[in-house]
Amino acid sequence: MKNAVGRDIPDFLLTGGREVYQGKNYMDGKYLQKAAPRTRRYEKPQESKLVDSIAQALRDCGAKDGMTFSFHHHLRDGDYVVNMVMAAAIDELGLTDLTIAATSLGSAHDPIAAYIEAGKVVGIQTSGIRGRMGEVVSAGKLKTPAVIRSHGGRPRAIEGGEVHIDIAFVAAPTSDCVGNCRGVGGKSDCGSMGYAMSDAKYADHVVVVTDCLVDFPNMPASVEAIDVDAVVVVDSIGNPRKIASAAARISQNPRDLMMAENVAKVIASTPYFRDGFSFQTGVGGPSLAANLFLEQYMDQRGIKMGWAIGGICGPMVELLKKGKVGKVIDVQDFDLDAVNSIHRTPGHYEMSASQYANPANKGAMVNKLDFVVLAALEIDTGFNVNVLTGSDGVLRGAPGGHPDTAAGSKVCIIVTPLTRGRMATVCEHVVTVTTPGDCVDVLVTDYGIAVNPLRPDLTECLDNAGIPHVDIEELKEKAYALVGRPDDLAWEDQVVAVLEARDGTILDVVRKIRPYSPEE
Amino acid sequence: MKNAVGRDIPDFLLTGGREVYQGKNYMDGKYLQKAAPRTRRYEKPQESKLVDSIAQALRDCGAKDGMTFSFHHHLRDGDYVVNMVMAAAIDELGLTDLTIAATSLGSAHDPIAAYIEAGKVVGIQTSGIRGRMGEVVSAGKLKTPAVIRSHGGRPRAIEGGEVHIDIAFVAAPTSDCVGNCRGVGGKSDCGSMGYAMSDAKYADHVVVVTDCLVDFPNMPASVEAIDVDAVVVVDSIGNPRKIASAAARISQNPRDLMMAENVAKVIASTPYFRDGFSFQTGVGGPSLAANLFLEQYMDQRGIKMGWAIGGICGPMVELLKKGKVGKVIDVQDFDLDAVNSIHRTPGHYEMSASQYANPANKGAMVNKLDFVVLAALEIDTGFNVNVLTGSDGVLRGAPGGHPDTAAGSKVCIIVTPLTRGRMATVCEHVVTVTTPGDCVDVLVTDYGIAVNPLRPDLTECLDNAGIPHVDIEELKEKAYALVGRPDDLAWEDQVVAVLEARDGTILDVVRKIRPYSPEE
Repeated sequence: MKNAVGRDIPDFLLTGGREVYQGKNYMDGKYLQKAAPRTRRYEKPQESKLVDSIAQALRDCGAKDGMTFSFHHHLRDGDYVVNMVMAAAIDELGLTDLTIAATSLGSAHDPIAAYIEAGKVVGIQTSGIRGRMGEVVSAGKLKTPAVIRSHGGRPRAIEGGEVHIDIAFVAAPTSDCVGNCRGVGGKSDCGSMGYAMSDAKYADHVVVVTDCLVDFPNMPASVEAIDVDAVVVVDSIGNPRKIASAAARISQNPRDLMMAENVAKVIASTPYFRDGFSFQTGVGGPSLAANLFLEQYMDQRGIKMGWAIGGICGPMVELLKKGKVGKVIDVQDFDLDAVNSIHRTPGHYEMSASQYANPANKGAMVNKLDFVVLAALEIDTGFNVNVLTGSDGVLRGAPGGHPDTAAGSKVCIIVTPLTRGRMATVCEHVVTVTTPGDCVDVLVTDYGIAVNPLRPDLTECLDNAGIPHVDIEELKEKAYALVGRPDDLAWEDQVVAVLEARDGTILDVVRKIRPYSPEE
Repeated sequence: MKNAVGRDIPDFLLTGGREVYQGKNYMDGKYLQKAAPRTRRYEKPQESKLVDSIAQALRDCGAKDGMTFSFHHHLRDGDYVVNMVMAAAIDELGLTDLTIAATSLGSAHDPIAAYIEAGKVVGIQTSGIRGRMGEVVSAGKLKTPAVIRSHGGRPRAIEGGEVHIDIAFVAAPTSDCVGNCRGVGGKSDCGSMGYAMSDAKYADHVVVVTDCLVDFPNMPASVEAIDVDAVVVVDSIGNPRKIASAAARISQNPRDLMMAENVAKVIASTPYFRDGFSFQTGVGGPSLAANLFLEQYMDQRGIKMGWAIGGICGPMVELLKKGKVGKVIDVQDFDLDAVNSIHRTPGHYEMSASQYANPANKGAMVNKLDFVVLAALEIDTGFNVNVLTGSDGVLRGAPGGHPDTAAGSKVCIIVTPLTRGRMATVCEHVVTVTTPGDCVDVLVTDYGIAVNPLRPDLTECLDNAGIPHVDIEELKEKAYALVGRPDDLAWEDQVVAVLEARDGTILDVVRKIRPYSPEE
């Protein structure tokens, strides 16, 4: 069945009331019966929940074949915990048919690919999928289609009972002996632990893995002892150099700066650019550089930013310290400046993934966003964005908060160069739709700006400000003129991944890529 | 059926798997399938949830006959919100058969008595019940028995689905336009909003009532916008003079001071009095005065308190500011010193009622308590304590956190004068058992100290420290010698209130008091 972004969704996926994507805000006003875990009552006081090993924690939590284990990705490319836990479960306990439900996965988790190939891991639910794991899943080696969700779609699915977590694993930079966890104070600090919060509240069992045990009570706790069954102390939960980079530096690339300046110009042309406005940006070159130009416009107009959310990095912390933004609310920290600021700089707060972006609660932070500036791997003439699959059709990205902030914000600006290497970024049809075009408002490229025809109000703003813009078709033609029109990818029938819209409908599917064979 | 504290529980109450009290920690290790609310999906961004009136908020939330409304008691005797909401529901909307599920109720809620007499309010679930409401319930005028729970028992019952909240009302000293609430920053500040947290997470609908609207986002939020359906701004949510008293002053009464000194002596005699120990005390005269003497012992030994929890008041904040306690974690604030300290003094944190005391989660703060010092209306020779019913059998108290801290702590000390007016405080059988004797360890009175025979370890501690103590029977006889043995109360059959143990079993019932009639 074709959905609202023109993608053909196979009928076999449309069971149990599952629908295809119907457009923005389709689920608004519907009711959700929340799910809840089955948990052990710890009435008798226990001094400590420390256990000797991950294997022991798995046994204590009744780990068995077919279970779903959850993980969060605040340790990013430095994470050791997913691999440690899966090795204990599969190699030590001999478990099989396991599903990994992670907030994101990356090349740090390359060893999991072998468990997929061996049929030990049969399900993957995640936002990001990259590296070896992306390759084996794209090659059709995972027994069930991977389920790809946004950062807001995941807590929705958990709270709605679509994902039931048997055991949640919390990678904790610090924990006390009963499991109060924080992202600061240890040797592997990650700052915010926002993505772990929903997992801990909705899992039947919760195991904390830490490399820094601190005195009880470890407050204010990001994950609370009242939800934790066991605490395991290991030598190291991750590689600090890969958890948080040194301060994210703003690009000096002239093309990035030119695009960033145009992003700021577009923002400043709208009525939403007023004292107290709200803002989120990614950490890509031009997105981050937009901070710089925005600050200039704020100074010119004598206004301040009310609040910013996101994944946070140094430049936003700087604005907070300078008093140019009122509050920074943070689901994840990208660099050491942000890690060292959260809970310390006044006005820098932590939020859960549900608070950040869940479309099924009573109003996530993204719903109050004025502006979001986002990158794209591809954007098509329907303003549909792909941030998941490469131009070869292989899984190597993550929707992350992209679809959530795009849907919630008043102005969603995509900033991307028109071409990357030999690939057109602006194209006829993206390989995979990860953010539907009805949520995307403006495209800023190095060859021009385009406004979504769904937003005549913004077209008028740009016209009034004398900002030139063109039809997105023109940008596509220009891109194809520069690098050529790509051949269609060749797919097999097998669906290797299902791309859920943030509301739980099906936005797109990724199929097995057909190996290149010159005889055909 | 007789329960473990010798109380006869009528069989008609033992339905649906409900059991009689079996003793401390009976439920430990059993599993709980948590309940969860049915909530509206707010996918479409909305700028504001402000509605014009409480009546309108009730209509928007689908209020109808037979519903359960929840309230919290951080505004204490100054609260206006319960009365405002019930007047809107009953007088404006004409609703009937309503149940009030409050964390506590007091004389501020006298007007509700008339709704009970008129049959509009047919159920009361609460910790505290006092004033006119206590009288009409004791007189048998409520259609169903009131259910009395501890502060830990309430979140257990809510999370376990025994109490389903249709609409939770949050009295918020400050809120933003979408319902992020805090207890500080307004004109009716209450500090911690810990008791409201579980309600907001488990109610189908949540209405915030505030008298101070602040800019979005009101962070860090005690109740989060993601759980809130509507925000109503009223002139005043409460009387600030009655919400938080001026600084709680330590008693100068020589009898109180003598008892307080003995409490500190007992604490200092135990092995748990070591660097980093944990402590909770009530705000009664001798309980609070114990802080003073404890500080002297801490100085003598050169040790510090690790952390304190509770209802918090000024003297504990002072200890925190002096660096003599590491952390203060707070479910409710009793005076302005505490209100003005939470979230401001480093180390002074807020916690939810579940974190504080819920016996069915994975380990509440009370489970890590070394010492708790508590008052009593009565204590019997089985060490059972009554803090609910007066000597006339009328409801005029609250179990509060008493049973939770008594059960969780390593040493629970009850401090009370032997007699009050003409009543013996130490007696043969308390009118109502609110804290079972198996949770109470030491009794300190102005006529001597008694140790529960279940704790020979503590008897040894007192002996080693040369602290004289007697059999509790002796204290009872002394009390009866001073004021006489009271006549038995005359009861009718009707059960007017069910006293739940914190684990959900039935600890005791309160029956209708037989009116005094000289002819009998």
